[in-house]
Amino acid sequence: QIDSARLWGSIHETAQFGGTAKGGVRRLTLSSEDKQVRDWFGKACEDAGLEVHVDALGSQFGLRKGRDMSKLPVGIGSHLDTQPTGGKYDGILGTLGALEVIRTLNDAGIETEAPICVVNWTNEEGSRFAPAMMASAAYVGDFTTDDILSRKDIDGTTVGQALDGIGYRGDKPVGFQKLGCFVELHIEQGPILEAEGKTIGVVDSGQGVLWYDGKISGFESHAGSTPMPLRRDALATLSEIVLAMETIAKKHGPNAVGTIGEAVIANPSRNVIPGEIAFTMDCRSADGAIMDALDRDLRAAIAEIAARRKVEVKIDLVWRKPPTHFDPKLIAAVENAAKTLGYSSRRITSGAGHDACNLNTVMPAAMVFVPCKDGISHNELEDATQPDCAAGTNVLMHTVLAIAGV
Amino acid sequence: QIDSARLWGSIHETAQFGGTAKGGVRRLTLSSEDKQVRDWFGKACEDAGLEVHVDALGSQFGLRKGRDMSKLPVGIGSHLDTQPTGGKYDGILGTLGALEVIRTLNDAGIETEAPICVVNWTNEEGSRFAPAMMASAAYVGDFTTDDILSRKDIDGTTVGQALDGIGYRGDKPVGFQKLGCFVELHIEQGPILEAEGKTIGVVDSGQGVLWYDGKISGFESHAGSTPMPLRRDALATLSEIVLAMETIAKKHGPNAVGTIGEAVIANPSRNVIPGEIAFTMDCRSADGAIMDALDRDLRAAIAEIAARRKVEVKIDLVWRKPPTHFDPKLIAAVENAAKTLGYSSRRITSGAGHDACNLNTVMPAAMVFVPCKDGISHNELEDATQPDCAAGTNVLMHTVLAIAGV
Ligand SMILES: NC(=O)NCCC(=O)O
Ligand SMILES: NC(=O)NCCC(=O)O
Repeated sequence: QIDSARLWGSIHETAQFGGTAKGGVRRLTLSSEDKQVRDWFGKACEDAGLEVHVDALGSQFGLRKGRDMSKLPVGIGSHLDTQPTGGKYDGILGTLGALEVIRTLNDAGIETEAPICVVNWTNEEGSRFAPAMMASAAYVGDFTTDDILSRKDIDGTTVGQALDGIGYRGDKPVGFQKLGCFVELHIEQGPILEAEGKTIGVVDSGQGVLWYDGKISGFESHAGSTPMPLRRDALATLSEIVLAMETIAKKHGPNAVGTIGEAVIANPSRNVIPGEIAFTMDCRSADGAIMDALDRDLRAAIAEIAARRKVEVKIDLVWRKPPTHFDPKLIAAVENAAKTLGYSSRRITSGAGHDACNLNTVMPAAMVFVPCKDGISHNELEDATQPDCAAGTNVLMHTVLAIAGV
Repeated sequence: QIDSARLWGSIHETAQFGGTAKGGVRRLTLSSEDKQVRDWFGKACEDAGLEVHVDALGSQFGLRKGRDMSKLPVGIGSHLDTQPTGGKYDGILGTLGALEVIRTLNDAGIETEAPICVVNWTNEEGSRFAPAMMASAAYVGDFTTDDILSRKDIDGTTVGQALDGIGYRGDKPVGFQKLGCFVELHIEQGPILEAEGKTIGVVDSGQGVLWYDGKISGFESHAGSTPMPLRRDALATLSEIVLAMETIAKKHGPNAVGTIGEAVIANPSRNVIPGEIAFTMDCRSADGAIMDALDRDLRAAIAEIAARRKVEVKIDLVWRKPPTHFDPKLIAAVENAAKTLGYSSRRITSGAGHDACNLNTVMPAAMVFVPCKDGISHNELEDATQPDCAAGTNVLMHTVLAIAGV
């Protein structure tokens, strides 16, 4: 059993780095707050006897030796960055839970056959830089390191500049730390476990993701003197797109979602009809065929709206992450650990993307979910209970022991 | 006849102050570009022999003596500030046209019975600070000077600070310069004169304006893991409001418009359902009963949308300017001047608000419109021809001579 109080203490101690008045965390990737939590985490790993390295994209790796160093390490961990209005658990539970597993094994003097490696992946959130799960995507070869280093935030700062800014451009090439498999603990970020009174979610799959950048070019004109029928209003166009997205996602059933999270009017003024809007779109489904249908329906709807309103709408698919099907053996190991420990559990699909989804494309991977209050995440009010966090961490530890061998 | 080339030269010389790559002007009120054009204008007025004063809200007054100084001056002028993506004529033609009238009278050695006063009103556009036509509204007593001085722009800078920032907080109290009447020359900012091939618009009325500040409070949550039916999406809410506004304005016929020009998502992120949006609304009609109906329908629609989507929407009416009915005698004077000069003309309603609309509440006022290309205004592509600008300025001069007496 892990030390529930110590885990809880780590979560709340690090929540000060970017802590907000509403009890959440604002710790955008590679920000000064991110540096603070990275420094804390690196030191904690060293204090726990791990060999710590940082790769060229800033991901932190802490290796605990195994008896058989010819075996590839079991990777565990998640991320410590947050959304602009993020919570204390999203990513953090999985990273500090991994640390807690190491501390517990150390205290109990348990050696494993295979090594164990805890990881804090850079920019899982995808809020400051796109795509989400950026560093693990480069790790598995979806993008080159140079490509990722050149991605820009809204102010034009590149990933490379941001890494240098906080001194976290590591000396190890991306991929230097080989892993044999990866297990990630996370809050569910959805309402199912809580609603069904289950403690552990055994994640067997994850939704695929489509990310688009969009731009609407209408025509700026006077709010008072331009008759309604003569307008080419970029905001009215966006509004139709937002509602079409909602309708399309609903049409494709419970297994699809669609969101417009960002929209910026160029040179806004109260008495000017908006002429230009930049926006982004996020569509998801656990079913690849539904993803294709979402893309098709969305493009058709946008084309119709743009033609009718005589405005130009450009959309660029900037990221496509196919649905994830986690490794059956690792899924069974997680399920078994939950059962052994006496926790109620159920199979579950992840609505969110996770670094484990990327790793799963090149190695066996799996995930452990615990409930979060009202399914709320990406919100400062995100919450989870101490017993649930401890339960998830115990399941993580027992899964790791089963895989790594004692 | 005024000097068409000289007028055209002034317009294009001053267009450099804030001139944009697309041929427009970005000269937000009380910005450094606004200081440049004010300095130019103040000097030009002095060079034309006017007695120049600046009031506590930065409006510039240039007085030309009349034979009978017991008579109140005939006010002429407009404004030199622009929209963020504004044109070279909106306000500028009326202000530099007024200067051109003075220069022409000087050259011809014409003395008038009553004095003439040219005015450059501060913040007509209302883009940086609300409301529009701010300084003329204070002049006529709609707001106190202190109230206006405390209005803030989006960065929290007050009008008072902005005035001090460019050295244009004048030493004269607002209202120090009494005027007997006011005549404003302006581009139409709408498509009617051009479509009908008329040179002069004799403005007999102006639309009333409703300005609202709005705020939507939904609930931030994860774009991937929050099922569609559980969302309280602030942007989907705004989208319905935008389209409801459009429908309501269209329903109230050709004599109504409604626009949402500004909308800002708080803490936007690609994978976060928007939780909070601040926005503004602008509704207009030349008919007071329609203005009331717009307000009523809009509030009802917003209440229904908010309740259905379980989000909170607050709207505040921050400005209500009733429709304007200009002074019949001055209207006739404008019409007569156009006829005498041989220009085609028609009566017209102003879609935009103007300082003359404010002045009309305490003194006789009227306006002269000239066509602008495709009715485009509040856009960098705004355009007007030299002959039309000269024609409008001639009508302004002849109207002034008729009122002031030669
Ligand atoms: N777990 C999580 O919130 N990931 C962020 C990436 C995404 O799914 O949008
Ligand atoms: N003339 C003009 O564009 N005025 C700006 C104020 C408004 O009508 O919105």
